[in-house]
Amino acid sequence: MISKILVPTDGSKAAQKAARYAVDLAKQLKATVIALSVIDQRSFILQTIPASGNVRHVMEPIEDYLREAAEKFTEEIKKHCDKNDVGSKIVITTGHPIEEIMKEAERSKVSLIIMGSHGRSALAATFLGSIAYGVIHQDIKIPVMVVKG
Amino acid sequence: MISKILVPTDGSKAAQKAARYAVDLAKQLKATVIALSVIDQRSFILQTIPASGNVRHVMEPIEDYLREAAEKFTEEIKKHCDKNDVGSKIVITTGHPIEEIMKEAERSKVSLIIMGSHGRSALAATFLGSIAYGVIHQDIKIPVMVVKG
Repeated sequence: MISKILVPTDGSKAAQKAARYAVDLAKQLKATVIALSVIDQRSFILQTIPASGNVRHVMEPIEDYLREAAEKFTEEIKKHCDKNDVGSKIVITTGHPIEEIMKEAERSKVSLIIMGSHGRSALAATFLGSIAYGVIHQDIKIPVMVVKG
Repeated sequence: MISKILVPTDGSKAAQKAARYAVDLAKQLKATVIALSVIDQRSFILQTIPASGNVRHVMEPIEDYLREAAEKFTEEIKKHCDKNDVGSKIVITTGHPIEEIMKEAERSKVSLIIMGSHGRSALAATFLGSIAYGVIHQDIKIPVMVVKG
């Protein structure tokens, strides 16, 4: 029934915990894991630089840095999958995290999304981070499992 | 890893869908299911009757009616479990749904809570019902899976 589990990660503690949980569950279910990291476009849209200026030399290093981080986060999940004989795939995209999670969920026809309750940008005081909250509130019919950080 | 799944139900369409999902998952995981129905105390606290009056003859039929409904909802889940060779237990309690779900989760040391996105009392227009919302926002470390109605 559950054959593909989507695991979005931003490398945060809660995301890492959710990923470990997802891999263990995938092993039990003989399901595969899609490790997704979204390069958050909001992180490098610089508000203070005029839109007309050539900002490529400023933007590119930021995007490269974020891409390296995304590769590292997803690679960690892949390694954990390999160790547990769980099939896995890495997906790295650029855009808004919630939109990209939804797009990948539909594209790959996943049967479950497992994510941490809090990402990097969340305030520790909130019970649910904005990305987890956003994904749960999307109008799609895929179950979402929230793992508390 | 996942050995006990708590499935709260109020008999709503989303709860029934979540329960079917939970039983299928339990079967795959060789886990057991605890079907919980909470007799919502808020339903029969009558605001318009003076607290000092003897309201037992008014309250009891309401509570009996709600208990019968709770038995019916949980019995449905148990039957579905039996059909699928999944071990199950029925728990019916009285109180506030969110508090009772949390209490039972801790008492039975469940590894996962699976619930519908909407219960009976939820407005169709909201993305997440108040009980699902309340459970996700509780400060306990049990993963919660939300199945969209």
